[in-house]
Amino acid sequence: MNNFHYHNPTRLLFGKGEIASITPLIPKSAKVMMIYGGGSIFKNGVHDQVKKALEGFEVIEFGGIEPNPKYETCMSVVKKIKAEKATFLLAVGGGSVLDATKFIALAAKYKGEDPWDFITQKSPAPDEALPLASIMTLPATGSEMNASFVISRESTQEKFGGYSELIRPLFSVIDPMTTMSLPPTQTANGIVDVFVHTMEQYATCPNNGPLQDRQAEAILSTLIEEGPKAMATPNDYDVRANLCWCSTQTLNGYISCGMPQDWASHEIGHELTALYGIDHARTLSIILPGVWRTFLNEKKEKLAQYGSRVLGLKGNVDEVALEAIEKTEEFFESLGLPTRFKAYDINASDAARLVSERFTARNKPGFGEKGLITPEIVRQIIESRA
Amino acid sequence: MNNFHYHNPTRLLFGKGEIASITPLIPKSAKVMMIYGGGSIFKNGVHDQVKKALEGFEVIEFGGIEPNPKYETCMSVVKKIKAEKATFLLAVGGGSVLDATKFIALAAKYKGEDPWDFITQKSPAPDEALPLASIMTLPATGSEMNASFVISRESTQEKFGGYSELIRPLFSVIDPMTTMSLPPTQTANGIVDVFVHTMEQYATCPNNGPLQDRQAEAILSTLIEEGPKAMATPNDYDVRANLCWCSTQTLNGYISCGMPQDWASHEIGHELTALYGIDHARTLSIILPGVWRTFLNEKKEKLAQYGSRVLGLKGNVDEVALEAIEKTEEFFESLGLPTRFKAYDINASDAARLVSERFTARNKPGFGEKGLITPEIVRQIIESRA
Repeated sequence: MNNFHYHNPTRLLFGKGEIASITPLIPKSAKVMMIYGGGSIFKNGVHDQVKKALEGFEVIEFGGIEPNPKYETCMSVVKKIKAEKATFLLAVGGGSVLDATKFIALAAKYKGEDPWDFITQKSPAPDEALPLASIMTLPATGSEMNASFVISRESTQEKFGGYSELIRPLFSVIDPMTTMSLPPTQTANGIVDVFVHTMEQYATCPNNGPLQDRQAEAILSTLIEEGPKAMATPNDYDVRANLCWCSTQTLNGYISCGMPQDWASHEIGHELTALYGIDHARTLSIILPGVWRTFLNEKKEKLAQYGSRVLGLKGNVDEVALEAIEKTEEFFESLGLPTRFKAYDINASDAARLVSERFTARNKPGFGEKGLITPEIVRQIIESRA
Repeated sequence: MNNFHYHNPTRLLFGKGEIASITPLIPKSAKVMMIYGGGSIFKNGVHDQVKKALEGFEVIEFGGIEPNPKYETCMSVVKKIKAEKATFLLAVGGGSVLDATKFIALAAKYKGEDPWDFITQKSPAPDEALPLASIMTLPATGSEMNASFVISRESTQEKFGGYSELIRPLFSVIDPMTTMSLPPTQTANGIVDVFVHTMEQYATCPNNGPLQDRQAEAILSTLIEEGPKAMATPNDYDVRANLCWCSTQTLNGYISCGMPQDWASHEIGHELTALYGIDHARTLSIILPGVWRTFLNEKKEKLAQYGSRVLGLKGNVDEVALEAIEKTEEFFESLGLPTRFKAYDINASDAARLVSERFTARNKPGFGEKGLITPEIVRQIIESRA
């Protein structure tokens, strides 16, 4: 196990009706900017619940954050925040809304000309941010209890991640009731997103962290058990609650404490979303098995451990590792997420070339847990997923 | 799963040499009171490391906190703190030292006459406390990342727990190197203490929290795997690190999120420590199996799940639950912790009567996860462990 520091002061309010508990957690003098997405919160009653909890506060609203939130949209929110002098941001929606809000909280305090510059690390990030909190309505990104975000720029077809301790939510409400009205596609995407977040921190190389390994396996087993139930009986409260809890637990920073991390599938997947608009989780269901097959030798101990402990497979390490990849592809497909480019009529060779060229142009250093993934390897991985 | 709120802002610094990282985390103007135990920190180099990290700070020291820290000792520290106008408390040692420091932090701000009154809830707890942090040298109590403490009063042979968000450590350092010089008895006690902490939150009644269940099982499996290694090869860094991480993870509040909790073995065990001076963990190794056997019917689903998933037992629920208890007793005994009173030449019937009378005298309401444990049941449980 490696040394590590851990600090996660986000307050969680979990369960049915907990939106009502936020009132005392917001400074009394705050001017609250509610930020949300396409309007589903008007259909599922969440907007009403939030407005009720905010009675007595001065509240302004912005609706219209899109999936894979756009820099351009965020900047119009920043403009409104400055004009209205809002002092507290409340994200109400899924990970895209919260990720956008995190970027907005920093961008509103940025003193330079173009906040995109701190995303691309051309200039330092702001040293302050507006305080923010979240009401999460989609268990997927784990954004509710971490300090990271991902943001896209339409004009340049770029999608980048950012991190700052200044934007860790002060509190996050997770009411599983709000997730029951999700379309099946989004439920399935969320399950795979959480699954791959876990794998990015688990399916690497052994590092003598048996508790962290088993904590990750706990999440994987629960997703494999509860995921299909959520698809079959979407109104089962406990099933939804268990999926929500998996989402939070996999990205609150614990399972990676002292352990190596991969994140190659995310790095490559972000490019595919930026170029082709494929849903985030659906890029992962294609790419993760490709990364695994390409680095089977490096990852086989952990893949075999997953195969044996989580999937109950029997055999030697090489056999179980390979079968674990096959079973994972079957799991993704069973939830309706394709694992090959052909499902999208995308030519894998073209995609491979485009993404690889982007990494080359950016002089991106080798990535993955051992820094072995070069633009050429990226090309091979994508091409293998035709 | 039940609704819950979760908030744990303690900062962890984990790994070899991390004591040196505390310097920027203490307010520059602080007058630091270092509080420690019997002097082992002088032998294992921890005192030197802490003093080095505190160079430039005004530091005063108190050594002499005993195992099962005494109210009487704590009050002499409070006197010294007031006389010296210390503003920051740094606990350096095991759970007893940290628990004492937590009580001291509150007692130093108590405005009434006798701080024991807020322990026994005769008066309200203080609404402020001195800031505190810890350097942990014994993986056992999990006190490093929670807001609880246990304190004993010699004059009345009482041992009670307390809780206040004001005394959650600002930071805790866990350097597994500092645990290598522990005597085997304390290593073994620590393993059992962490094991029982996990069980108090796990071996209750099913509550549809599959992730929490598996997270608890992750800790139990790791303890069963790493515990004997720590006894056999006490200088193995990774083994020590894994035990330390189990200790923190089992009492940072996560595995009980939304789940029922028992704590009956602790309630009864505290009385046995107060009356007979038996080490805390050694009261648990006697009592836990007694609680389980008495409530076998109520707990059999969870005990069988533990038996099957953690111990690999086969059979029907009743068989596996019972065998799981037997195997747990064998595990405790294998670490050198007795599971029966006869090992201490204590008459179980006398102990049963004494403890039961104490609960009756206090009008203690029914306890355990379903509130079923009355003074009469306590008598039966203790008597069954002759």
